[in-house]
Amino acid sequence: MTPQHTTPVLKDLNIDNITANTIAINSQGSDARMQYLMERLVTHMHDFARETRLSTKEWMAALNFLVQVGQISSDVRHEFILLSDILGLSLLVDAIDHPKPPGATEGSLLGPFHTHEAESITDGESMSSDPKGEPCIVIGSVKDAQGNPISGVKVDIWETDSTGHYDVQYNERDGPDGRCYMHSDDNGTFWFKAIVPVPYPIPHDGPVGQLLKLLNRHPWRPSHMHFMLEKEGWDHLITAVYLRGDPYETSDAVFGVKESLIVEFTPADQSTAKQYNVAVGTKVLRQDFILVSKEEADALKDKNALEAMASLGRRMKLVDHLPVPDLD
Amino acid sequence: MTPQHTTPVLKDLNIDNITANTIAINSQGSDARMQYLMERLVTHMHDFARETRLSTKEWMAALNFLVQVGQISSDVRHEFILLSDILGLSLLVDAIDHPKPPGATEGSLLGPFHTHEAESITDGESMSSDPKGEPCIVIGSVKDAQGNPISGVKVDIWETDSTGHYDVQYNERDGPDGRCYMHSDDNGTFWFKAIVPVPYPIPHDGPVGQLLKLLNRHPWRPSHMHFMLEKEGWDHLITAVYLRGDPYETSDAVFGVKESLIVEFTPADQSTAKQYNVAVGTKVLRQDFILVSKEEADALKDKNALEAMASLGRRMKLVDHLPVPDLD
Repeated sequence: MTPQHTTPVLKDLNIDNITANTIAINSQGSDARMQYLMERLVTHMHDFARETRLSTKEWMAALNFLVQVGQISSDVRHEFILLSDILGLSLLVDAIDHPKPPGATEGSLLGPFHTHEAESITDGESMSSDPKGEPCIVIGSVKDAQGNPISGVKVDIWETDSTGHYDVQYNERDGPDGRCYMHSDDNGTFWFKAIVPVPYPIPHDGPVGQLLKLLNRHPWRPSHMHFMLEKEGWDHLITAVYLRGDPYETSDAVFGVKESLIVEFTPADQSTAKQYNVAVGTKVLRQDFILVSKEEADALKDKNALEAMASLGRRMKLVDHLPVPDLD
Repeated sequence: MTPQHTTPVLKDLNIDNITANTIAINSQGSDARMQYLMERLVTHMHDFARETRLSTKEWMAALNFLVQVGQISSDVRHEFILLSDILGLSLLVDAIDHPKPPGATEGSLLGPFHTHEAESITDGESMSSDPKGEPCIVIGSVKDAQGNPISGVKVDIWETDSTGHYDVQYNERDGPDGRCYMHSDDNGTFWFKAIVPVPYPIPHDGPVGQLLKLLNRHPWRPSHMHFMLEKEGWDHLITAVYLRGDPYETSDAVFGVKESLIVEFTPADQSTAKQYNVAVGTKVLRQDFILVSKEEADALKDKNALEAMASLGRRMKLVDHLPVPDLD
């Protein structure tokens, strides 16, 4: 047995020794990654309490808040994702887990509204049935860093209706709407009909909304459309496109906007209208998605992880591209 | 407006700048304490993700775990307190918020089973109706550091039944049992009948139990009886007494045991038996509780807080004995 695995004597624990002892008792298992996660979690959680001199009253209020976050959650509402979103954690985790070399399409956060029930559509079909939305078409392509088309990519797309609500936010609904998935064709392209996205507030009738209010923050997201692209051999891309000039362009409640993801819908000229069989003037978005190979993404992730570990001064190794203590 | 309150431009956020921007947007309100708590929370949460290179899969698993913790919680089961307990946070917060000078009775954690529905009893009454428990009496006194009795202290007491379950753990129950509150008399004393505490596992049929299992930890707490003492002018004392020789004396799943809180129940001699009208040999615990004046506890808390802030190198002041940034 290494010293790390000696069972600690859990008695007379106080402000100064509780952290080391909690870490020690959490280190009896065989999962090195789990142990590292718990060690960092306990360290940060305890440091937080020590640095803020957290009071019993504040601690209780926080735990009651977390109960509420859990209890308002359901199959179609994940309030903990929302909480993670407004605290910048979601954006950060995507940035860590899916690093992008220059030229690749940048990522954005998943948000709480992705579902696995979207239906497959083919080129030219509509993913929104909302008659009040402003019609548009999206002409997409998927390429690698060298500009070669990538076919057979599953593209998941979701957006709100014209009132700023996702299908799952309605108690009564007849199945998925405002969401679909497609596959890029042999030329790496796909196109579909949708509605021009609108800004909307994230759900703020629950505990996350109360927290935003306490922090004097608004709940709005700028107009956007979500995309998720996946194909074996390519790094999973979760992203979104944002409309230029949106009133919330620089104050997204969940920090998703990147300059490279800001787009403009332009009116279809005669040639485009004819090609896609839509009225002249219909709003058109042309969007290229540049994927990163799994290999390149993993190499970049490993490099970033090793640099981060070195800056911590820890002896670590990577297992499945994730750091674990190197005890050998 | 101070520079701290300039609205940040939330765009192009990445691993390196997301934290500062999240803190900036959280600093638009007027509650300085809330801002400080959020600043430390966001910093630690983001550092945790950066230091572990938290993956999207792990992040999602953690958020789903937290949903479960919230959803199993109810009026009579607070799984987030339990989670805080097994991570050492509860013990730590009590130690920070209720520091004890030498000689004072040490604190222990509240745990998830305190309720506000206990009934008042008077000297000599029983707080447990369990016929299978080993009968005992507890003879308590409440004193100040100089040994002067403190009268009129509300003493809240709770323990499990002989099977190791609190009343609230039974779906069908006829009101409170194994819990009561009393007041110390003019001599600072109180006494009651109860049953000798037994070891028990914390509820481990939920997500916290799953986590313990993953960490290869047992869920047991050593035999103990909870006490909470409160009176205006005295620092709130949350504590417990633990039975010497318990098999879990040095491995309490929630870190509550302190040597000074370990007690022995001894058989009543003839004189004691006569005085308290119990059978000779009945188990007796005599326990003094030494309270700290609110003034002394606050002074100690302030001193500890200022030392902690100094070690952080931050310019802070104390408001209501809690640190907030000193922006003047």
